[in-house]
Amino acid sequence: MSNKIITLTTDFGNLDSYVASMKGVILSISPLARIIDITHEIEPQRIVQASIVMSTCTPYFPEGSIHMAVVDPGVGTDRALLAVRCKTQVYLAPDNGLLGFILEKGCGSEVRKIENRDLFLPQVSRTFHGRDILAPVAAHLAEGVTFEELGPEFTEFHPNIFPYPQRDDDTLRGEIIYRDHFGNLMTNINREDMKDLDVDKLELECGYTKISGLSQSYCDVEKGELLFLFGSAGYLEIALREGSAANKLRFPLGTVVEIKEN
Amino acid sequence: MSNKIITLTTDFGNLDSYVASMKGVILSISPLARIIDITHEIEPQRIVQASIVMSTCTPYFPEGSIHMAVVDPGVGTDRALLAVRCKTQVYLAPDNGLLGFILEKGCGSEVRKIENRDLFLPQVSRTFHGRDILAPVAAHLAEGVTFEELGPEFTEFHPNIFPYPQRDDDTLRGEIIYRDHFGNLMTNINREDMKDLDVDKLELECGYTKISGLSQSYCDVEKGELLFLFGSAGYLEIALREGSAANKLRFPLGTVVEIKEN
Amino acid sequence: MSNKIITLTTDFGNLDSYVASMKGVILSISPLARIIDITHEIEPQRIVQASIVMSTCTPYFPEGSIHMAVVDPGVGTDRALLAVRCKTQVYLAPDNGLLGFILEKGCGSEVRKIENRDLFLPQVSRTFHGRDILAPVAAHLAEGVTFEELGPEFTEFHPNIFPYPQRDDDTLRGEIIYRDHFGNLMTNINREDMKDLDVDKLELECGYTKISGLSQSYCDVEKGELLFLFGSAGYLEIALREGSAANKLRFPLGTVVEIKEN
Repeated sequence: MSNKIITLTTDFGNLDSYVASMKGVILSISPLARIIDITHEIEPQRIVQASIVMSTCTPYFPEGSIHMAVVDPGVGTDRALLAVRCKTQVYLAPDNGLLGFILEKGCGSEVRKIENRDLFLPQVSRTFHGRDILAPVAAHLAEGVTFEELGPEFTEFHPNIFPYPQRDDDTLRGEIIYRDHFGNLMTNINREDMKDLDVDKLELECGYTKISGLSQSYCDVEKGELLFLFGSAGYLEIALREGSAANKLRFPLGTVVEIKEN
Repeated sequence: MSNKIITLTTDFGNLDSYVASMKGVILSISPLARIIDITHEIEPQRIVQASIVMSTCTPYFPEGSIHMAVVDPGVGTDRALLAVRCKTQVYLAPDNGLLGFILEKGCGSEVRKIENRDLFLPQVSRTFHGRDILAPVAAHLAEGVTFEELGPEFTEFHPNIFPYPQRDDDTLRGEIIYRDHFGNLMTNINREDMKDLDVDKLELECGYTKISGLSQSYCDVEKGELLFLFGSAGYLEIALREGSAANKLRFPLGTVVEIKEN
Repeated sequence: MSNKIITLTTDFGNLDSYVASMKGVILSISPLARIIDITHEIEPQRIVQASIVMSTCTPYFPEGSIHMAVVDPGVGTDRALLAVRCKTQVYLAPDNGLLGFILEKGCGSEVRKIENRDLFLPQVSRTFHGRDILAPVAAHLAEGVTFEELGPEFTEFHPNIFPYPQRDDDTLRGEIIYRDHFGNLMTNINREDMKDLDVDKLELECGYTKISGLSQSYCDVEKGELLFLFGSAGYLEIALREGSAANKLRFPLGTVVEIKEN
């Protein structure tokens, strides 16, 4: 019996029995598995949100961790279920773009289509593959089943759904992709995207809002003032010191954000 | 020291210190117990909701699991606290109907009234028996105290509160008993209840809504259309593909649902 | 490898990746640590709320537990990070008053300023010390690093922010400091504060509301009636049997509560 880590990311919420059913299935197969909830509060069927949350926290987990994601509007169709190995970690999820963040990082050749029915629950429903397929597969992996046993190699996976910023002459143009619990507005612009801009002269424009000068921490401005900085996940964020930028600005997800030198 | 599984189902929410206090008590007695949260988001004092959630997920847990539920409007009165053994699992809860789902399954003869004060915290409050009685009892069970030591046999437990569907000539009449996170409306009608109806000719009627034909998965209809199918818990549900049937139909819990052949 | 308990209390919510990132960091250093969530639903930056929640549940945890709190509006300033040892338990948090409840209990001499960079993540951001400093420090403590190794002794910590009740002739004057999930209104008045009042003759006054007679349990009054009693955390509470006193009375936090003999 192993005590491997299995993480869960779903849009199931924390009330219903769905998450607990999956945990029961996992612990019945792998009694000492250490189950960690990443989140169950992904908005129903918002695949890209699950992608963003997993991409920012899974790198902090130990070698050998198994990450399982169930945001699955296509359950019951013939969409595939994927296993992707990235260095020593394994990701399990429906083939709907959710794992694009990891497939793009050079792990695109380490993909299997989950097809080995010996690893599933005896009865597989047409509405809940998280419980009937992914949970037992994760638990069997934790107990020593190899990655190769999950199913055949697979290359025709869903294209990436993560939006990338564009460079247009002197302007870097991204968008708001996530709003966090504090009301920070996270963009899709990372340090690498900005590497040939002069960080001492930056200006951010978003709707009618202009902010001058990249901050290093929330405390570089006065309480109640707007700023922009690289957040802890490595992406550029619009924030409000000791308040909510999202509530003040009311920009929806997808709003264009422009960065240039002033 | 054992590493048995102890699950928790409460109406305590996830902010207050109540759940953590119970976990501290459990871990002080059974340091390696594996605590699994089923949910703490039961609506305050909605006993039947806790019953439904537990009945659908606890069967997936391993042998020897201990399931503890605290939805307890009667705390401070003389209502009993029950321990019920069902095959190898044990359920602990106030005697208020919450465990009806398991008592009805032929486990009604395996009931104890929890009375052994040696297993309680030294000081028992009149407002929080989850912490002062059920948590330490669960932990002692995990550490090897026997079911028989909990207290005397007990037969006068609270009658079942779970509503069953009625058959009336050619109509099966149930009700909506649960609304899940996705807005699926779960009824109290299961496969067994429908065993002498022709599944190829079914019609569901609920308020002014009529739906023809039992679906097998959400994808049997177009996006935005209503359907009815057996959900993953084995009960008939009204659903809306990639949307919320609850938000569209606005039927309250308790709304009558009729099934007939057309 | 140890299996010590590490608890987490934050204002991060349960959606974002922040909590999971901290758990990944902890488990990478201390693979068998047992992580217990106290809560992640502290209102953003409400330090005193975190204090109240932790003070009422951490005493129930086993010897050797490590309690880590991240409610940190001052991240990025030069505020210190504290480690406080109280008997066998250790508390880790920013120096902003959050740990006042434990510092006041005679543990004020067992305080260290966390400064040993060998215990931090290699890269420390200016926006997320929970992940980059406190999580790895907690994990190293769990693995056997001593309290003394964390940093130098420290005495100039933030003054206590917890409000205490005042005695004024025959009136004990406290305030509402917390509203729980059930709508119980918890005050800052404990049993010790009331020790020279005659418990058989008490009257509570709060706004236009007067309640006569201290109750022992919620069931001492009829359904829908107001009462006051010592809650399970040991503080006086205003409650409504099988309902929400908070919704009925709509008193904000900070509302004065007076207790006198009638």
